[in-house]
Amino acid sequence: MKAKVSIIMGSTSDLPVMEKAAKVLNDFKIPFEIHALSAHRTPEEVEKFAKGAFDRGIKAIIAGAGMAAHLPGVIAAMTPVPVIGVPINASLDGMDALLSIAQMPPGIPVATVGINGAMNAGILAGQMLAIADSELQKDVIAFKESLKEKIVKANKELSSIKYEFKTN
Amino acid sequence: MKAKVSIIMGSTSDLPVMEKAAKVLNDFKIPFEIHALSAHRTPEEVEKFAKGAFDRGIKAIIAGAGMAAHLPGVIAAMTPVPVIGVPINASLDGMDALLSIAQMPPGIPVATVGINGAMNAGILAGQMLAIADSELQKDVIAFKESLKEKIVKANKELSSIKYEFKTN
Amino acid sequence: MKAKVSIIMGSTSDLPVMEKAAKVLNDFKIPFEIHALSAHRTPEEVEKFAKGAFDRGIKAIIAGAGMAAHLPGVIAAMTPVPVIGVPINASLDGMDALLSIAQMPPGIPVATVGINGAMNAGILAGQMLAIADSELQKDVIAFKESLKEKIVKANKELSSIKYEFKTN
Amino acid sequence: MKAKVSIIMGSTSDLPVMEKAAKVLNDFKIPFEIHALSAHRTPEEVEKFAKGAFDRGIKAIIAGAGMAAHLPGVIAAMTPVPVIGVPINASLDGMDALLSIAQMPPGIPVATVGINGAMNAGILAGQMLAIADSELQKDVIAFKESLKEKIVKANKELSSIKYEFKTN
Amino acid sequence: MKAKVSIIMGSTSDLPVMEKAAKVLNDFKIPFEIHALSAHRTPEEVEKFAKGAFDRGIKAIIAGAGMAAHLPGVIAAMTPVPVIGVPINASLDGMDALLSIAQMPPGIPVATVGINGAMNAGILAGQMLAIADSELQKDVIAFKESLKEKIVKANKELSSIKYEFKTN
Amino acid sequence: MKAKVSIIMGSTSDLPVMEKAAKVLNDFKIPFEIHALSAHRTPEEVEKFAKGAFDRGIKAIIAGAGMAAHLPGVIAAMTPVPVIGVPINASLDGMDALLSIAQMPPGIPVATVGINGAMNAGILAGQMLAIADSELQKDVIAFKESLKEKIVKANKELSSIKYEFKTN
Amino acid sequence: MKAKVSIIMGSTSDLPVMEKAAKVLNDFKIPFEIHALSAHRTPEEVEKFAKGAFDRGIKAIIAGAGMAAHLPGVIAAMTPVPVIGVPINASLDGMDALLSIAQMPPGIPVATVGINGAMNAGILAGQMLAIADSELQKDVIAFKESLKEKIVKANKELSSIKYEFKTN
Amino acid sequence: MKAKVSIIMGSTSDLPVMEKAAKVLNDFKIPFEIHALSAHRTPEEVEKFAKGAFDRGIKAIIAGAGMAAHLPGVIAAMTPVPVIGVPINASLDGMDALLSIAQMPPGIPVATVGINGAMNAGILAGQMLAIADSELQKDVIAFKESLKEKIVKANKELSSIKYEFKTN
Repeated sequence: MKAKVSIIMGSTSDLPVMEKAAKVLNDFKIPFEIHALSAHRTPEEVEKFAKGAFDRGIKAIIAGAGMAAHLPGVIAAMTPVPVIGVPINASLDGMDALLSIAQMPPGIPVATVGINGAMNAGILAGQMLAIADSELQKDVIAFKESLKEKIVKANKELSSIKYEFKTN
Repeated sequence: MKAKVSIIMGSTSDLPVMEKAAKVLNDFKIPFEIHALSAHRTPEEVEKFAKGAFDRGIKAIIAGAGMAAHLPGVIAAMTPVPVIGVPINASLDGMDALLSIAQMPPGIPVATVGINGAMNAGILAGQMLAIADSELQKDVIAFKESLKEKIVKANKELSSIKYEFKTN
Repeated sequence: MKAKVSIIMGSTSDLPVMEKAAKVLNDFKIPFEIHALSAHRTPEEVEKFAKGAFDRGIKAIIAGAGMAAHLPGVIAAMTPVPVIGVPINASLDGMDALLSIAQMPPGIPVATVGINGAMNAGILAGQMLAIADSELQKDVIAFKESLKEKIVKANKELSSIKYEFKTN
Repeated sequence: MKAKVSIIMGSTSDLPVMEKAAKVLNDFKIPFEIHALSAHRTPEEVEKFAKGAFDRGIKAIIAGAGMAAHLPGVIAAMTPVPVIGVPINASLDGMDALLSIAQMPPGIPVATVGINGAMNAGILAGQMLAIADSELQKDVIAFKESLKEKIVKANKELSSIKYEFKTN
Repeated sequence: MKAKVSIIMGSTSDLPVMEKAAKVLNDFKIPFEIHALSAHRTPEEVEKFAKGAFDRGIKAIIAGAGMAAHLPGVIAAMTPVPVIGVPINASLDGMDALLSIAQMPPGIPVATVGINGAMNAGILAGQMLAIADSELQKDVIAFKESLKEKIVKANKELSSIKYEFKTN
Repeated sequence: MKAKVSIIMGSTSDLPVMEKAAKVLNDFKIPFEIHALSAHRTPEEVEKFAKGAFDRGIKAIIAGAGMAAHLPGVIAAMTPVPVIGVPINASLDGMDALLSIAQMPPGIPVATVGINGAMNAGILAGQMLAIADSELQKDVIAFKESLKEKIVKANKELSSIKYEFKTN
Repeated sequence: MKAKVSIIMGSTSDLPVMEKAAKVLNDFKIPFEIHALSAHRTPEEVEKFAKGAFDRGIKAIIAGAGMAAHLPGVIAAMTPVPVIGVPINASLDGMDALLSIAQMPPGIPVATVGINGAMNAGILAGQMLAIADSELQKDVIAFKESLKEKIVKANKELSSIKYEFKTN
Repeated sequence: MKAKVSIIMGSTSDLPVMEKAAKVLNDFKIPFEIHALSAHRTPEEVEKFAKGAFDRGIKAIIAGAGMAAHLPGVIAAMTPVPVIGVPINASLDGMDALLSIAQMPPGIPVATVGINGAMNAGILAGQMLAIADSELQKDVIAFKESLKEKIVKANKELSSIKYEFKTN
């Protein structure tokens, strides 16, 4: 089945973070592909990827990067497909990557999620694709519903705890 | 014509920033609406707005806020429609708003753009809607093309400048 | 006995931090309740909780959250009961949570304590309730007195240490 | 009429910020006093003030300070009365004052509001006093209601604006 | 005369900062060229420029950019010519640009100077070219010598000031 | 009269900040000298100054610098005389200078005051010299006393203000 | 032998950092005392200590504190004796303590050293006392000399290392 | 063979970071030397080194330092040879070192690389020397080529992974 979303990372060391995006897309049954591409080490591959994405039917791109984190912005500059940027914490608690991805100049947006927020990137891609896919839209709505279950259950457990402390 | 995008701001003082999003949507001929709603001052209105957005046919929401900047996240929590967050510089150079919007917990993404980046929010909304609208897609591609013209022209002007300095 | 203070957290993973507030309330013999509620995952539960708190006799609310940390502000928007916010260190050393909780817009204050400062949140709740409870006021005053004992004792131990170092 | 709230500032240059707290207390008809006291320049006056506040019937203290901003914490150390701290932007965009006020050690809380957030400090004081004053409680509730009016009106004005832009 | 150094900026609004680099090169009599190129708006032009720079005889590239500031890194990825990056203060006091330029991944260095430090970028280019140009080397050494003159003269003026203050 | 304190600055543009130190020394009747010396532009002068300071009878050195702000640390490395560092706000709100001056490695302390805190640097020099000068010690004590007068007077003025606001 | 320097810390948990100051004073044969005193938990003890220090013959005070870190400034407000502040890393990498100690208002300086820089605080105290103690001055000068030995030795070891790497 | 590049570090504890620069130079077959020199502990050695570097045939200097990190700037002030600065993370995640190295005043540039970025410092030195060494230029170009191989291989491995997740 043809991929609709591309997950791109600058290094395979980013995989433990980025595979959370893959997991969400899998849950949404959205076909996806994963590539390791570096804005700096493989600029030609990035260009080829970015310029071809639209014609290959890619509807959203999720790109993760750390430090100077140029990958999401560089891809966004070369495609009309919306790009979701995931700042990865590789130094400075991820603040460098957050600024390098979010602070794009006028004309070239990157939809930035939180530091290491690949799960949210996957959900956002699902929400974008659901604009034109009523079946997926139902899954997105169901997912949103499911979020509360865990916390409602947690709340029940909390209520049953007896807090008895002793001063010392 | 029915609005497809909602532009939301926490205060009319944010209008000079947020109307850049309106301008872009206008250029893309995407019908939109503008509301002033505050996560903290009108929580019920926000809830009514957010819960009704999907059924009213809204495809993307652009929400701008400064300081603690809860508005985009609060809306995102109550709708399956993708939410684009615009951090507005009202204090601390906008760093507080950037963190309050971007650092959302797993499950509730907000597509964050740069500080005061409302123009980019409008473009991103256009890219999202273009996923299911081939006519709009052409406009998005044309817009991307047009970006380079201005800078190519600027380059020509630069080339004709004679740099002759004197040491002093 | 009916709860007078509510301790709210966005996730049970915040319990090790937040139970320090519970311990203080227990020491002050102030009846309290603990709930897990998420501003983003269970907005309706949060609303129900916040709107009902005053009528149920809750006098102060302690809300802890990390990252974008909207919970304290969202609750504060829907109740006249004073809300004490505890920024939890879940990323960026807790700086994101501190800013997201403290930098509230005019009209909706949150009484913010330090990062992971749940013990102080419990004391602050005690001080607030003591305004109208002279018995509790005595306990608060006694608690303040007790703080010095530990450090006075520490000082005695320090004084008895002989510092003899060798240069190397 | 005897003051129930004290507004303290480290320098009269802080008055333009701090008088917003006075205005709120005035609106709530809460009698208050204003003092200029410096943790560093008049430590004895601060001590005298802090130790006497409770016996003089003060129910809440609002203390504003910039830079190292020790005033709120120093007062909090010497009284059981709850202290609300207002970080004032005198350098570093107010970040130094925010940290110096919020990051209090275990045992001595200061209820910190946002940078220059004196209005919110006044509201918070009102909420605290309303715990034991059902008449004031009504005013607090009415105040919360009134917050939305301005923004609802703003929203109506926004709706009537026709956005017609020209590309250039 | 064929240019040996290229000065690149993302927008002509950066010219007031970047022309300080031009002035230094002029003083060193190093032939240079100036271009406006945007990593995001004209990626193909950037690529063409970067890949051709070495063959055209360019020995050093000075690239200035603000905000996400990808331009220096993107050029560095596509040329063996050393790239000097100038972070431009367009937001967040230039901290975003500093991190986006300095924090490059292993393999692709950018020689970063201080925020708005285009004059230093010009000097650094001069130092690099002087490695292989003994005539230029003399000019660099003379320039270093000249730096002290101004401050030595300032010192003399300072010494002649009589400081007589009155207490008030 | 022979100077006992040296005030050093990296550039005469720092004079408006640094002359506050001069004013304090003048008030204390401590003879002083002022020099413009740059760690980077006149390293030999700095070395000559620093190595000769002790023998010339200098008892304390006040050194102000902005940005990378190496001057205080470089002097401290070459003299046993205590060095007081004044971070000057020339960029990044003075945070770069604060860190460059305060974060000295083990072995070479610089007594750092606040950003632009030259007045405090002068006082600190006075306190140091007063260790061995009982006449000056009296002046230091008198100065400390005088600090409170201004604020006590301010407090009296505040007390006489009638705060009467109108809700609007 | 009567103490000439006081080392003060807010909690015995700061001892591993602060005892480096003690070690230096011991090396300099300067008699010292160590106390645990908290600006917030034992304000009266702090006051008693600070006000009595001068009369007891204390010539310099070294005060360490973390987080809001008021201790050094509070002591400085109540004594003419110079106070050296040591910011202790207890949260936010010590940035909160650095700002709370360094950013003192005009009139009340604290001589701030780097984060966890207690060794440097000890040296600085030695330099201050040496102003009036020619015997100690010799020790300070000898200490400065000794600093280089270790690094000169390290340099010799480095020179003897053969760097032979293999590409992989 | 005579060294063309000097690697300088303030302490042998920086060796694990700085030897990455040595490894790169070794790969490029550029003869180099390594020294431990401290701007603060051995200022005379630093001066001797810096002033002699040019005459000894050193073409580029790589200097690493942490905290206040004056070493690169101090060397740059005393030589026409280009200096590459490596900020080392010894506190505050390396942010203090980054600012202390990058924010040099006009006239004395330091070519700053990322935090702990010694490998990039080595490459940058190679690029600088290659300006005048066509044989080395080939190696630099080959090195740039080789960067992509690893990531292209990684991409192949990624493509062969089957992502099959289960919702839980």
